[in-house]
Amino acid sequence: MEISKTEPLCSEESSLTKKYFEVRQYTEEICRPLAIEDYVIQSADYVSPPKWHLAHTTWFFECFLLKPYLPKYQEFDDKYSHLFNSYYKSVGSHWKQSQRGCLARPTVEEILQYRYHVDAAVQVLLESPSYCSDKVLSIVEVGLHHEQQHQELLLMDILHNLSCHPFSVNSGISIKKLEAPKINQQVVIPEGLYSVGAVGSGFAYDNEYPRHKVHLRAAALDVHFVTNGDYLKFIEFGGYENHSFWLSEGWAWVEQQTSSEKGFKCPLYWSQKKGEWFEFSLTGEQPLNLEAPVAHLNFYEAFAYCQFVGARMPTEQEWEVAAQLNPKYESQKVLWQWTQSSYLPYPGYEKQEGALGEYNGKFMSSQMVLRGSSWATPESHERTTYRNFYYPSQRWMFSGLRLARDLK
Amino acid sequence: MEISKTEPLCSEESSLTKKYFEVRQYTEEICRPLAIEDYVIQSADYVSPPKWHLAHTTWFFECFLLKPYLPKYQEFDDKYSHLFNSYYKSVGSHWKQSQRGCLARPTVEEILQYRYHVDAAVQVLLESPSYCSDKVLSIVEVGLHHEQQHQELLLMDILHNLSCHPFSVNSGISIKKLEAPKINQQVVIPEGLYSVGAVGSGFAYDNEYPRHKVHLRAAALDVHFVTNGDYLKFIEFGGYENHSFWLSEGWAWVEQQTSSEKGFKCPLYWSQKKGEWFEFSLTGEQPLNLEAPVAHLNFYEAFAYCQFVGARMPTEQEWEVAAQLNPKYESQKVLWQWTQSSYLPYPGYEKQEGALGEYNGKFMSSQMVLRGSSWATPESHERTTYRNFYYPSQRWMFSGLRLARDLK
Amino acid sequence: MEISKTEPLCSEESSLTKKYFEVRQYTEEICRPLAIEDYVIQSADYVSPPKWHLAHTTWFFECFLLKPYLPKYQEFDDKYSHLFNSYYKSVGSHWKQSQRGCLARPTVEEILQYRYHVDAAVQVLLESPSYCSDKVLSIVEVGLHHEQQHQELLLMDILHNLSCHPFSVNSGISIKKLEAPKINQQVVIPEGLYSVGAVGSGFAYDNEYPRHKVHLRAAALDVHFVTNGDYLKFIEFGGYENHSFWLSEGWAWVEQQTSSEKGFKCPLYWSQKKGEWFEFSLTGEQPLNLEAPVAHLNFYEAFAYCQFVGARMPTEQEWEVAAQLNPKYESQKVLWQWTQSSYLPYPGYEKQEGALGEYNGKFMSSQMVLRGSSWATPESHERTTYRNFYYPSQRWMFSGLRLARDLK
Amino acid sequence: MEISKTEPLCSEESSLTKKYFEVRQYTEEICRPLAIEDYVIQSADYVSPPKWHLAHTTWFFECFLLKPYLPKYQEFDDKYSHLFNSYYKSVGSHWKQSQRGCLARPTVEEILQYRYHVDAAVQVLLESPSYCSDKVLSIVEVGLHHEQQHQELLLMDILHNLSCHPFSVNSGISIKKLEAPKINQQVVIPEGLYSVGAVGSGFAYDNEYPRHKVHLRAAALDVHFVTNGDYLKFIEFGGYENHSFWLSEGWAWVEQQTSSEKGFKCPLYWSQKKGEWFEFSLTGEQPLNLEAPVAHLNFYEAFAYCQFVGARMPTEQEWEVAAQLNPKYESQKVLWQWTQSSYLPYPGYEKQEGALGEYNGKFMSSQMVLRGSSWATPESHERTTYRNFYYPSQRWMFSGLRLARDLK
Repeated sequence: MEISKTEPLCSEESSLTKKYFEVRQYTEEICRPLAIEDYVIQSADYVSPPKWHLAHTTWFFECFLLKPYLPKYQEFDDKYSHLFNSYYKSVGSHWKQSQRGCLARPTVEEILQYRYHVDAAVQVLLESPSYCSDKVLSIVEVGLHHEQQHQELLLMDILHNLSCHPFSVNSGISIKKLEAPKINQQVVIPEGLYSVGAVGSGFAYDNEYPRHKVHLRAAALDVHFVTNGDYLKFIEFGGYENHSFWLSEGWAWVEQQTSSEKGFKCPLYWSQKKGEWFEFSLTGEQPLNLEAPVAHLNFYEAFAYCQFVGARMPTEQEWEVAAQLNPKYESQKVLWQWTQSSYLPYPGYEKQEGALGEYNGKFMSSQMVLRGSSWATPESHERTTYRNFYYPSQRWMFSGLRLARDLK
Repeated sequence: MEISKTEPLCSEESSLTKKYFEVRQYTEEICRPLAIEDYVIQSADYVSPPKWHLAHTTWFFECFLLKPYLPKYQEFDDKYSHLFNSYYKSVGSHWKQSQRGCLARPTVEEILQYRYHVDAAVQVLLESPSYCSDKVLSIVEVGLHHEQQHQELLLMDILHNLSCHPFSVNSGISIKKLEAPKINQQVVIPEGLYSVGAVGSGFAYDNEYPRHKVHLRAAALDVHFVTNGDYLKFIEFGGYENHSFWLSEGWAWVEQQTSSEKGFKCPLYWSQKKGEWFEFSLTGEQPLNLEAPVAHLNFYEAFAYCQFVGARMPTEQEWEVAAQLNPKYESQKVLWQWTQSSYLPYPGYEKQEGALGEYNGKFMSSQMVLRGSSWATPESHERTTYRNFYYPSQRWMFSGLRLARDLK
Repeated sequence: MEISKTEPLCSEESSLTKKYFEVRQYTEEICRPLAIEDYVIQSADYVSPPKWHLAHTTWFFECFLLKPYLPKYQEFDDKYSHLFNSYYKSVGSHWKQSQRGCLARPTVEEILQYRYHVDAAVQVLLESPSYCSDKVLSIVEVGLHHEQQHQELLLMDILHNLSCHPFSVNSGISIKKLEAPKINQQVVIPEGLYSVGAVGSGFAYDNEYPRHKVHLRAAALDVHFVTNGDYLKFIEFGGYENHSFWLSEGWAWVEQQTSSEKGFKCPLYWSQKKGEWFEFSLTGEQPLNLEAPVAHLNFYEAFAYCQFVGARMPTEQEWEVAAQLNPKYESQKVLWQWTQSSYLPYPGYEKQEGALGEYNGKFMSSQMVLRGSSWATPESHERTTYRNFYYPSQRWMFSGLRLARDLK
Repeated sequence: MEISKTEPLCSEESSLTKKYFEVRQYTEEICRPLAIEDYVIQSADYVSPPKWHLAHTTWFFECFLLKPYLPKYQEFDDKYSHLFNSYYKSVGSHWKQSQRGCLARPTVEEILQYRYHVDAAVQVLLESPSYCSDKVLSIVEVGLHHEQQHQELLLMDILHNLSCHPFSVNSGISIKKLEAPKINQQVVIPEGLYSVGAVGSGFAYDNEYPRHKVHLRAAALDVHFVTNGDYLKFIEFGGYENHSFWLSEGWAWVEQQTSSEKGFKCPLYWSQKKGEWFEFSLTGEQPLNLEAPVAHLNFYEAFAYCQFVGARMPTEQEWEVAAQLNPKYESQKVLWQWTQSSYLPYPGYEKQEGALGEYNGKFMSSQMVLRGSSWATPESHERTTYRNFYYPSQRWMFSGLRLARDLK
């Protein structure tokens, strides 16, 4: 994670205060339809209970902003740092991620009090001419981007939690309808030298720096997404039974999957009953929409589908250059897109100083890059150079697939 | 589990209705101090969320009483049977025990509605002369004993759930103070032939039948319990570091335990800080009371302690005969007592007919018998012939230890 | 393990020397047909490589006999104690049981040299009037009984090792043909008080002491064994698909078994090809003999079969009394027989002093008793009071089943 | 894996026959000092028993060369394909990798017979003008490169197998002495566009194609290796106790490592006794040579060491360009060198047709590239474009570290 490298923000503190409260309130708004019981559940090691997200994003401001920069700030509860630090080892011990679902307390009500306590203090800080430095403003900015990331994680985790219930549960969260572009168009990248990475105007994380040159071969990248209907053809062809489409790790993953009802292997949240396919969503189980882009694939499934149709995923550099060449390629807000790039440091990468240096750099092994954004990504959290990353076996995020092909 | 083999109950239906509501309300009373969040947690595979207990005990009446015996009974929700059946395979599928903590829904409020719905129907049944048969009354009786078992399980599980929190949490449940007898007295059993097992007057489970003869050698059984102070001597002697006290399985268990803070191995819920010992309880962490009986030992620890002091546990037959010889031996209500008897069928044992035959018989392997009762056992749920049973490694129940010695 | 409690042996040292060499050579004879490669394999945690057995039985004499009782005895290799001690924690550290298959060295040839070195020293000791005390003779006796136990273990382990090969391998070990009694006869035990346990004439382990009284109810015990043909009826009835026959632990075991070829669950070493059943043996795969007693059941399978036919296993006390009443009941040499008794100390049990006290006592939890003997048990190693014991899930030993029924 | 794309070999069959026998005999020569018992052991899932390597490399020629291209070839044993196929799912089933140590048979002697049988047939094929096509020659070439890879694997696996013995075992294999360059020299890469990948003259695997352009920033790459003495400073500084040097996955790996004797964490095969450091080698335990290059690091350790000294690993492209700019950089034959590049397809990569397409392509996920060669790499098996790859946690290969730094 990187604070913006360019523009001082101090003149804009009042709009930042406004933005602060907008972002913070949106987090609570996401959770509003939930029952108290829904806030507590942790259905997998990599999922967090919704109430943990509410507290963790608050702890972020308390730990990195209020305690160092607001004199006489009164910590809400000195035990919270251990409970709600995620993985910042530089700032102390933390509770085990896989055991977050064991924490009955603090209650949801207490966590909301914690939020209001911190929000009030942040407001004091932002409105105090003597304390509100550029550094302060830049940490607020980072904290808001962090909170926006957790807004998407909240939706991912609520969906996963409810999906583990044997019966279809409606979260009450109303979701924006996906509308993926249906035109069969491609962006062509001519062979050549291009530049990728953050340019330094506007916020970017440290992993997007430095901007650097890459040589690309000629390629064509689809604008449209692979759909549920497309992917169903792969299943019906026997894609999950044919090792030749799969990476070795992917095939091992397939073999350890238990089949869904009726013996089918399929994307996460799909099921089949009496010959009909369904997809579980935040409003419960729905008939599968064959026109919609296929979601919740992992990298292995994305790779196998590519082999099936004789295409490949774009690299993250190709993705970014395509978005430069044709802004329509970028502005999708549909689903994150798998690339065939490992999540590695850019040439010349330097991780941020201090505890916030743990935000990105230490995760640069064994993960793959996803680019773009999804319907669950807050609007102001999108950018062309954004590098999202997950393990190749993971698929509870809002991940989709667009194809690329070499041009000879 | 066995319905009473002797006395018809039909003339007493009004007192049974009264008893029914007393028992049912006590279950809810136990939970009343909890926050909603506390009802959802499952801190170990063998622990259940409190709300699951509330629903399961209700399902028991719905499944075994109302659906077969109350004509036109309207099931509250046909999905609940899958969710709240514990292990009765004869009456359909059931959700995995280790995943009960993943069920956000139904909410606590919905489960209370379920309880009231079933209670109203049970009342109708009990007050209806045409439906209220002896069979009905005997199933009510079984259901109430079942619910009383879950009242103790509730307290065990709430304690375990809260203990997994890194900071001391007070459940708000006020507990009766333990007062263990302190007189240094023994019950002497002369060698001879005795009878043990249920006599058939009053309720007993099927595993307490038939009454049968056993030959016992002369032995002396302590009336008093091993105390925290006694057990601390074992720890301070190096009991957990000395293989010679332990069963082979017990030593393997010791070696895989992670030490508590300050590197001590000790009973469940003990911890040591700056040289002082503490014990976690339903009201949070308390200084260890050296006079109180040591609790939350497993069978391996009980065995090792016996080796340390040159004594042994009584067999379950010795325990029962001692209670016949001297009723003071039985009436303890302090802690269940480990015996050195495996949980096996009595000679001539016949398991109950139907689904309720799954209550006891199928668990007769690899477990050890505990006798007596604990402060958490509802009063009317105690009896001399009661056979409680747990795996030798388990220790989240209210288990304690009284010693026995051979007389030569 | 217990040395004989009665007769001094010192006058018989020459016959003991003869017996010593007979027993020791028979161990090597069992292994003679093996290839060197066969000596190294460990196909499961509870199995040992044959060369480990050859060395361990030798270490037993070196550790418990030669080092304490033969002055100036020269240890063969001071690293062997760590490698070949099985579990006697009182005499030092030992290598992990599950990792015995990682020990390429010492080679088989080196281990045979070790055996000859120890044998020569034992002979010196036995022939030396000044060193050969009663204690020495009694330890030799224990060592020979120990070695005979390992002769049976060797056959169990060689069979298991070879069975894990995907193709039928013939060990070259010629086995005595099983001839189980076919007469449909029963031993009737009248209700009454009996005595069981070692009487003190001749060798017995400590776990067979003390002789003590037991009260038995009337019962009838089959002399004949349940056959492969009998057990096949259980399979064909759907025994492995019907929870109602099984203990809860047994059903959990069934559910985690992978089915054999063609989807059948069955005893260890059975397989089915094109509708025909086969059994793997020391001479490779053979067509299943329906007349032969069914072998390699675990306790759960034995229990389930009993439920299927409406019978039960005898207790170990019933078994021993039946063998007293009718010696035909005992002398079977066919297969060990499961009992429904847990392996627990007899009333008044005292474990042997010193390291040999670890032989039996520390295993008295979670295991079940088998009685009798098998075709693989050396003849002089059988006796009426012998208590063999295994975990209820284990089935690589030569275990079979005879039925019992209550008489009312 | 890729057959050479350029020169037909048919005119050279006699020299190829010579080379064939040289390579094949060298494999057997490596194993000659071993005892039969050493050939059987499998000390980890990813390690294979030496006799498996002897058979698998032979199966490769039988499966891909003799059966398709030598008419009337008589298969040695039709069960061997299942046993000795490693992972080529296109040519049939295969035995589980983790269970190779359970295969007592075939014996070493039988496997040597298998080798001679196949060698004789290959000679017939190579000397037969009517069958010896360019395709045949190219498969022989691939088979020999494959066998050379297994020669290094043999040494890795023998070392690992013996290291799992609690006492220092000397394999009897005499190893060439490591002589790493000690001059403190760097290769400077000026920023610019370079070409990397196989040029098509001489043999290369498919993963080295196609040659392609890359843009590199200015960097300086050390010629010399990080030594044991250098790495010891990292340990003594507390490198294994300081999370800030480690990737998140690396730190998780550190935390699950059990410490070596005396509580030190260190490279594989190191140990410390009474303050002195030792390293286990093919000739047993040796005092640690502080001048020698540090070996048997995994990627996480290499990364942490780089963070400690403020340097980084080169990318595989930098490595290859440095070797182009200064051949001294390449010709090391000391240890493979970790790069910070993930093992991914080159732009425009096409996997080989047929079963041999499984050789490389399907492993392109979650692994990291190592470049160069080691003292255990057969001489004719080295080349500048060679891409070796392992998981970041693995360290039983002969892996070392050379540093790189950005030039600004």
